[in-house]
Amino acid sequence: MIPREPLELFELARGGSRTALARLLTYVESGGATQLDTVALAYEARSPYVVGVTGPPGGGKSTLTDRLITLTLDCGSFDGDDPFDQVGVLCVDPSSPFTGGAILGDRIRMQDHATNEHVFIRSMATRGHLGGLSLAVPDALRVLGAANFRLALVETVGVGQMEVDIASAADTTVVVTNPGWGDAMQASKAGLLEVADIFVINKADRPGLRETRRDLEQMLELGEHAWRPPIIETTATSGAGTAELWDAIVEHRAHLLEGNYEVHRRARLRRELDKVLSAMLRSKVTELAHGVSYDAQLDALLAGTTDPYHAAEKLLAES
Amino acid sequence: MIPREPLELFELARGGSRTALARLLTYVESGGATQLDTVALAYEARSPYVVGVTGPPGGGKSTLTDRLITLTLDCGSFDGDDPFDQVGVLCVDPSSPFTGGAILGDRIRMQDHATNEHVFIRSMATRGHLGGLSLAVPDALRVLGAANFRLALVETVGVGQMEVDIASAADTTVVVTNPGWGDAMQASKAGLLEVADIFVINKADRPGLRETRRDLEQMLELGEHAWRPPIIETTATSGAGTAELWDAIVEHRAHLLEGNYEVHRRARLRRELDKVLSAMLRSKVTELAHGVSYDAQLDALLAGTTDPYHAAEKLLAES
Repeated sequence: MIPREPLELFELARGGSRTALARLLTYVESGGATQLDTVALAYEARSPYVVGVTGPPGGGKSTLTDRLITLTLDCGSFDGDDPFDQVGVLCVDPSSPFTGGAILGDRIRMQDHATNEHVFIRSMATRGHLGGLSLAVPDALRVLGAANFRLALVETVGVGQMEVDIASAADTTVVVTNPGWGDAMQASKAGLLEVADIFVINKADRPGLRETRRDLEQMLELGEHAWRPPIIETTATSGAGTAELWDAIVEHRAHLLEGNYEVHRRARLRRELDKVLSAMLRSKVTELAHGVSYDAQLDALLAGTTDPYHAAEKLLAES
Repeated sequence: MIPREPLELFELARGGSRTALARLLTYVESGGATQLDTVALAYEARSPYVVGVTGPPGGGKSTLTDRLITLTLDCGSFDGDDPFDQVGVLCVDPSSPFTGGAILGDRIRMQDHATNEHVFIRSMATRGHLGGLSLAVPDALRVLGAANFRLALVETVGVGQMEVDIASAADTTVVVTNPGWGDAMQASKAGLLEVADIFVINKADRPGLRETRRDLEQMLELGEHAWRPPIIETTATSGAGTAELWDAIVEHRAHLLEGNYEVHRRARLRRELDKVLSAMLRSKVTELAHGVSYDAQLDALLAGTTDPYHAAEKLLAES
């Protein structure tokens, strides 16, 4: 199959073609020259408003995301506009290098929407992208923006550095916890505090709700916040609390716009640029490691006539 | 105090001055020009034989290290030589940015040796080293080598990527587990399998020994090994099994020498060189991020006239 040019695909995607949109996202995941062309076009358009949903596995993120999709299409809007005509959803599991496991499960759970033409759901994987998922996700979000999506949800499994990284691509980040998760939260406090704009205690009908709320509140009291993350109790399976969650998202967006939204956008772009710079430099290390000079320096190291710092400096000077 | 030149300090260190040796290690930790001079000199000398002792906190690594120190000074030798005249010990806790906590505990537990002139114990910290502990530790080991240490022990707390990284600086890596640690091991299987040359089940007098041994054996059966890590049972508090541990270390070293030791050394130096290259390139990103062009590219990103990849390429081309 001859790949169509990104420009043409973007036109088709804007016209509603999901096939074209899927192809563009594959370009983004695959890296290389076509990715660069795709991204260059995508960055000309406005970014969608991005809501990140993150937290440890098993917390009910997918069911909650499900609810948010229905809600935003039915009655969700910003600034009194009409409800969203379409919602894009990216599912990310950095711990699983293949599409499967949790992500497959998410897909099944979200299958109510799979045949809904207003919903576009995609499991993200990296198939050679220079910077892995933490770069592919912002790229993919831009592609959604260029395909006229005004709202995108990103569901990320886990609470490690990679997840924090991906969550930082969102405008509003929702961290999903469960009653009785005191210890699990404890272990990842710093990371969660850093990214959470809203805390959700899902499965709020289970025992331990009060303790988890108290733990979160104590955690929040330790920091100073221009925006103090609210704690929303939900039961995603019944839908209880999900309207309040959406209200909190709208409120957080208003807070961002009230403050200096340009500063927020600039900070985000700065993180993206730094990530790209790092990725490019990393690939340069790989490139250097396959050169002739590299072997010569390694020989010198073995012979004890140089050390790694002087060897590295020489390699960088030559490159 | 005026810092003495590394060359002079190395002469003093080789003559037995612990003060000079400590100063050199501080140079290494501190980074900068003096570190570069120190390391350049250190790499001219032979590396000591390095035994890494790693594993989750609370497993008894320090007591075991203690035992190894006594044993190697009393009767430990390679190739039928005399027992070692001195042993160097580096204590590393990557999770703790300050000297304290576990490391302080280790020091106290090792205090029997603190006044022994044949033992040199040092808690490693980074005070500005370019590449953090994973670079400072190999540098420090080289400094010990240049100060005529033929044997060095590196005790590392934890089982994360950083610990794996530090452990890879050892010739023989001993992974310390305890009876009943099935689940904890499970979580870090991949990392442990990658680095372990010898498994120790310490506190072998406790319940659960058989299960842990079975778990480890099952784990080992999954991989193919030119060297199959032996599983040694020890009770470090009584000393039981520590002689067997030392024998296993001697055996692993013989295996390395039998095979192509140059290949092993080359692989290690390659990892060190790659780490230094990465660290230097990372610092270049920081440098770029403080330049005038960087702000111009960020403005272009905000305006939608460029994307992060083309912006990064421009910055790299200009640098």
